[in-house]
Amino acid sequence: MRRLNHPNLDEVTLVKALSALGDPIRLEIVRKLSDGQEHQGSELDVKVAQSTLSHHFTTLRNAGVVFIRPEGTRCWHSLRPEFDQRFPGLLTKVLELL
Amino acid sequence: MRRLNHPNLDEVTLVKALSALGDPIRLEIVRKLSDGQEHQGSELDVKVAQSTLSHHFTTLRNAGVVFIRPEGTRCWHSLRPEFDQRFPGLLTKVLELL
Repeated sequence: MRRLNHPNLDEVTLVKALSALGDPIRLEIVRKLSDGQEHQGSELDVKVAQSTLSHHFTTLRNAGVVFIRPEGTRCWHSLRPEFDQRFPGLLTKVLELL
Repeated sequence: MRRLNHPNLDEVTLVKALSALGDPIRLEIVRKLSDGQEHQGSELDVKVAQSTLSHHFTTLRNAGVVFIRPEGTRCWHSLRPEFDQRFPGLLTKVLELL
């Protein structure tokens, strides 16, 4: 089965994390994934083209925020629990301020 | 006396704040200003050209993070206390994770 590359959280810097979160589309994605469930991109109802959405997911994946699980021709997205271990409370604080 | 434009914090979005913080130089500036004092740019010992530093200060000013007080030919920089009222705990969290 195809598997996407996900960074070791130790290699993700705070700058990279903040930069990934500092975008309106990516923040909307994170908010929608904060229900703790896996979602397909199309379910999230983000008003951008599929290619743009895919680009934002890649940025979030590279920053350790999002896990992407391919299944056949679909991709399931969820927040990585390890992100909160790497940056305790950051995502909670950001979501609280949204 | 010359006075620079500083945004009303109500107009600063979380995205803009996170985006301003998501840069290594700007995060270094914020860390150095977190002593609560006013500093001239040159005091901060950030290893970039003066023009680059000035650009980063402008980004931080536009995001409501930094107050810049011109005095003659010098500029004094400090963190804006209102930022923490707008985004309670965000800067504290970011500084804690640095």
